[in-house]
Amino acid sequence: MEPLDPHGMTFQVVATAPDCSARAGLLWTAHGVVETPAFMPVGTQGSIKALDHRRAQELGAQILLCNAYHLYLRPGIAVIEHFGGLHRFLGWFKPILTDSGGYQIFSLQQLRRISTEGVEFRSHIDGSLHFFTPERVIELQRVLGSDIMMVLDECPPYPAEHSMLEEAVRRTLLWAQRSLAAFRATGSRYGYRQLLFGIAQGGTSTALRRQCLEELCQWDFDGFAIGGLSVGEPTEAMYEMVALSTELMPPERPRYLMGVGTPENILTAIEYGVDLFDCVLPTRNARNGQLFTTRGKINIRNARWRFSDEPIDPALDHPVSRTVTLGYLRHLFLAGEITALVLATEHNLAFYHWLLATARRKIQDGSFRHWKRSFLERIRQTAVESS
Amino acid sequence: MEPLDPHGMTFQVVATAPDCSARAGLLWTAHGVVETPAFMPVGTQGSIKALDHRRAQELGAQILLCNAYHLYLRPGIAVIEHFGGLHRFLGWFKPILTDSGGYQIFSLQQLRRISTEGVEFRSHIDGSLHFFTPERVIELQRVLGSDIMMVLDECPPYPAEHSMLEEAVRRTLLWAQRSLAAFRATGSRYGYRQLLFGIAQGGTSTALRRQCLEELCQWDFDGFAIGGLSVGEPTEAMYEMVALSTELMPPERPRYLMGVGTPENILTAIEYGVDLFDCVLPTRNARNGQLFTTRGKINIRNARWRFSDEPIDPALDHPVSRTVTLGYLRHLFLAGEITALVLATEHNLAFYHWLLATARRKIQDGSFRHWKRSFLERIRQTAVESS
Repeated sequence: MEPLDPHGMTFQVVATAPDCSARAGLLWTAHGVVETPAFMPVGTQGSIKALDHRRAQELGAQILLCNAYHLYLRPGIAVIEHFGGLHRFLGWFKPILTDSGGYQIFSLQQLRRISTEGVEFRSHIDGSLHFFTPERVIELQRVLGSDIMMVLDECPPYPAEHSMLEEAVRRTLLWAQRSLAAFRATGSRYGYRQLLFGIAQGGTSTALRRQCLEELCQWDFDGFAIGGLSVGEPTEAMYEMVALSTELMPPERPRYLMGVGTPENILTAIEYGVDLFDCVLPTRNARNGQLFTTRGKINIRNARWRFSDEPIDPALDHPVSRTVTLGYLRHLFLAGEITALVLATEHNLAFYHWLLATARRKIQDGSFRHWKRSFLERIRQTAVESS
Repeated sequence: MEPLDPHGMTFQVVATAPDCSARAGLLWTAHGVVETPAFMPVGTQGSIKALDHRRAQELGAQILLCNAYHLYLRPGIAVIEHFGGLHRFLGWFKPILTDSGGYQIFSLQQLRRISTEGVEFRSHIDGSLHFFTPERVIELQRVLGSDIMMVLDECPPYPAEHSMLEEAVRRTLLWAQRSLAAFRATGSRYGYRQLLFGIAQGGTSTALRRQCLEELCQWDFDGFAIGGLSVGEPTEAMYEMVALSTELMPPERPRYLMGVGTPENILTAIEYGVDLFDCVLPTRNARNGQLFTTRGKINIRNARWRFSDEPIDPALDHPVSRTVTLGYLRHLFLAGEITALVLATEHNLAFYHWLLATARRKIQDGSFRHWKRSFLERIRQTAVESS
């Protein structure tokens, strides 16, 4: 396990772009340093869908996202406690961020009651009744032993009435404060430091986002997240909220845009000063046969690839991307082979990690904004040609 | 590509057991040497189910089995020809054996007509009508470019009338002879040598097996296979047929027992002098949650493993077997994660390759029979304790 930075620092900005808010940073956790901007593969239930996390680490994953709500329901917190925390349960000894599950609970179809105290919900697995409070969610994440814990927040749907957004902001702020108190009142179970990030809500309302962030950022969270976006709002509205949020966030703390997004979304958010990302897009779309490449998106089931002996993406320094051909991968998809899902997932994550690592390098050499523009033009251009 | 053995040899026995017919050998192919006894993972459609063949190679797979019938139907022979053969299509540059598809065709539910000329069948994918002759199947495998080609044979079900077995032997022998003639009349497409193995049938009839093998083994095949077993007959009958077959086969040619089997089946057949094996058992059972280990079989879904932080099999020198815990793997199975299938497959194949490599070492040091007995006793014992 790597020691914390000797100066006790959590986050350090090591380079900023000369012509935009993009920054390259280092985020210290008890299980190692994360070079930001960084993409966190989604391992909701403790596993990246269709990819052994050993492989994800080889292709550049620095930090894994898991979900406290899902792991609480299955395998159950007693199992993970017995193992001595999530790192040992998974066999992943690099950093882990656990989402609280707020987003999942508020997306549940099952009966739930929200009160100031907390949220009552039914398990999506067996319908059993559960009650989460901000304090309980901190406690769960203490048992999980994640390096970065997220507070319980209320994530309203899109679109939502202004009054509903207002109420969600009020509750999210109240819960954030209680989470921070619970965090301070409790200690690590396993002898290493855990960080706590606050989450801002406010939908696409400039006024509510501003109000939420102005209050949230006064509190001493280790990092700040932008929640409640990428839930169906127009892309321009999302960009506006991200730009507003990063302006209001303290520059010396890491910034995390939750659940976003496409390569274009991520590069734009980096331009506005976001440091951390997670999204199911590269893994979910891989399983549907959509590949992200440096030449744009590829629908691998398309008949045009039948005879193609081109590799998926020779520009990437990853064996699967450089050697598996489009024709072979298409065959595996049409034949219904599980290996098709594995190879596509491995490639898409290799692409996402390449994208973030390249963005970081371009920030450091001062060419990020220029590179971003020409890269996005190039992949859009290829997409037009392929369609 | 490794050169052929300088003496033009295909197979060499390098050690024989002092107290049974087990032997350790080297099988030279255009894509490298196979150390026998060896297990061939099944990659029917050009992919091991749930495991990237790059991983299989890392854990000890020396030769991959694919199926000419399946690949002929999908992606179609034109695709593989365009790629320059199966090795390039798959990106697997070690030896490949292709089964002719006889077994698959004779298992088809769809309408088929068998004549002396060949077999008419309907595709299991789209119902289209196809006709295979022994000559056509050699031609297909010339295009596939497999290192070891198998003749088209007739595999009757179990149980079968004696007259049906007789007819199958007659046809299988006729087809074997025509296959050999077609093999001699054609050349390699890609400039390297391909081998051709004959297949013996005869069900569990001693007389028919003997008759079939006595004729088949007079012909100059590069190796000989025992077909038509592991189709439902009692284990003892299978062992009897294997013992009889290996006695009749020329000692200087490799012997392949098709579609077998459990660890016990394989070790017993090795004792009788078999060199090559393939079976879906390690991969199929992995996907059903059954693990083969040096401590016996494990049903990973069993509640007894819920809190187990034991690794799957610490006796194996493979990262997945040594580090993935039973409790974690059980969780992935119950949660329906694709990674569960991948990890279980990876472990089961690691176990099978360990089993065969260990058998080979024990043959070389003269202790095979003793080791086999005590190993099987141990895994049977543990199975009793677990049940």
